[in-house]
Amino acid sequence: MAFHELVSLCTTINLRPRYSETDKMGIVYHANYLIWFHEARDAMLEVLGIDICAAEVYGYKFPVTESYVRYRLPAHYGEDVIVSAVPVIEDGQTNSVAKLRVRYRVQSAKTRQMLVEGETVNVITDSEGKLLLRLPLCFKPLASRLDAACKQDFKV
Amino acid sequence: MAFHELVSLCTTINLRPRYSETDKMGIVYHANYLIWFHEARDAMLEVLGIDICAAEVYGYKFPVTESYVRYRLPAHYGEDVIVSAVPVIEDGQTNSVAKLRVRYRVQSAKTRQMLVEGETVNVITDSEGKLLLRLPLCFKPLASRLDAACKQDFKV
Amino acid sequence: MAFHELVSLCTTINLRPRYSETDKMGIVYHANYLIWFHEARDAMLEVLGIDICAAEVYGYKFPVTESYVRYRLPAHYGEDVIVSAVPVIEDGQTNSVAKLRVRYRVQSAKTRQMLVEGETVNVITDSEGKLLLRLPLCFKPLASRLDAACKQDFKV
Amino acid sequence: MAFHELVSLCTTINLRPRYSETDKMGIVYHANYLIWFHEARDAMLEVLGIDICAAEVYGYKFPVTESYVRYRLPAHYGEDVIVSAVPVIEDGQTNSVAKLRVRYRVQSAKTRQMLVEGETVNVITDSEGKLLLRLPLCFKPLASRLDAACKQDFKV
Repeated sequence: MAFHELVSLCTTINLRPRYSETDKMGIVYHANYLIWFHEARDAMLEVLGIDICAAEVYGYKFPVTESYVRYRLPAHYGEDVIVSAVPVIEDGQTNSVAKLRVRYRVQSAKTRQMLVEGETVNVITDSEGKLLLRLPLCFKPLASRLDAACKQDFKV
Repeated sequence: MAFHELVSLCTTINLRPRYSETDKMGIVYHANYLIWFHEARDAMLEVLGIDICAAEVYGYKFPVTESYVRYRLPAHYGEDVIVSAVPVIEDGQTNSVAKLRVRYRVQSAKTRQMLVEGETVNVITDSEGKLLLRLPLCFKPLASRLDAACKQDFKV
Repeated sequence: MAFHELVSLCTTINLRPRYSETDKMGIVYHANYLIWFHEARDAMLEVLGIDICAAEVYGYKFPVTESYVRYRLPAHYGEDVIVSAVPVIEDGQTNSVAKLRVRYRVQSAKTRQMLVEGETVNVITDSEGKLLLRLPLCFKPLASRLDAACKQDFKV
Repeated sequence: MAFHELVSLCTTINLRPRYSETDKMGIVYHANYLIWFHEARDAMLEVLGIDICAAEVYGYKFPVTESYVRYRLPAHYGEDVIVSAVPVIEDGQTNSVAKLRVRYRVQSAKTRQMLVEGETVNVITDSEGKLLLRLPLCFKPLASRLDAACKQDFKV
């Protein structure tokens, strides 16, 4: 199964590591990268026209069902980073499916050195946590933007 | 205005500082003591017959409106602590008021040295966040236990 | 004892509440405001020419010894805030003392409504945690900036 | 490449989800499971005779280099969980290598339902973060315990 990054939808945020995010090794504690991924995913969704707050008011939830992180080099307090999020599609996936795979990269803002990479999968559920198989209306912009990006990035 | 601790209702929990709770100074990050206070308060409320989850199902909220912390000595990873929570009443306060003041102490489990002290105030609100002036039914056990403790501790 | 804000040194940061910072009440968890205060204090110190990382390399530590928070209204995910930090001096305090009192305000970025207020005290210690009575060299800019601000703000 | 769990070294801890660990979806925020994994790993290492604090005093670090989490069902405030950690060895791996792979399971304490599963990889580095290829003395008990468990669990 092959995965493709929709690079035209890549969104980048700048982050300043917080003192509270460090641990006694003197580096950013490893669980915090999932929080930074979340921030980058939110920024990406905002660009794609998705408003998580509005979706939650309708009773939809958007939980993470899978996460993978590869920690190459630690981020440090005092050294700004950039975090990018890019949607990933599987070969043969229709974008009407209520599932979103995103790939992340954390790089030093100064040197652009790769620090951390990762991936998450989110699904959309109703208020009881039941998996939705089709995208609800408030997530439709996501599907159309992913479709358009597929066509643009891969000329399909 | 004088405050009195209802020592007969003092509840104590044992905590092992987590690696994730440390910072690059090598000590427990200062915001985490509020989380430890919360754990001790929850344990105390459980003893007093209050079920926060049940209260939330009824739409009640129990937010913190004030916190004070005095950091004397740092807690460290690898050194267990005990955290105590004790309700505090003001002179002339009727315990039917939807407000709870709690005092906390964090001590080294080994040496009993005082590390951190603090205090919080919680109020009870409805689902819209509107302050309740009277205790709802599911918080009544709290009032009667506080009353009984007042009588016992201060012979009033 | 009277306290005065050195308003000419007030520093403000913009923050977007993180999903990870919310709790099951649907609001920003109360301990996180201390982290936001820390971010605002760091920004203020940077403006004042203090580099905490450099100071830590010399073995100095800058722990919080006291914190007070008054939670008026909750911050929410999806609603940006501004956090301000302003140094506070006591009557008769000489700014060469290794102690810093800072006052904070968290306001809605949109409505400017006051959400949370607070105060912290930091001290400077050596690597063993022993309190310094005099400011080390790398903190001197702080003293001179506080002095200058005192003269400017209060015409003394 | 095949992985085997050293089930005889499986260590289990009981955890009470904290209010601070929930998010506005009303469930435990997904990054916190990495913290729970860390707690279970620490408990496992303690049983195996490894003292992380002591190792850090010698200048060794034990950073996570990889993490994977599969979120099946959410953990909730008010519902205790058990978290297990078990070392995993690869076919052909010699246990003298300065690398530790651990697998985790988070289950409901009441129903034993599987909530979350995951895996992490840790390596041992010197104080500069340089990867150690051989285990330092203070980690030797780990190697011998893993060796013994291999022999016991797989009769090799």
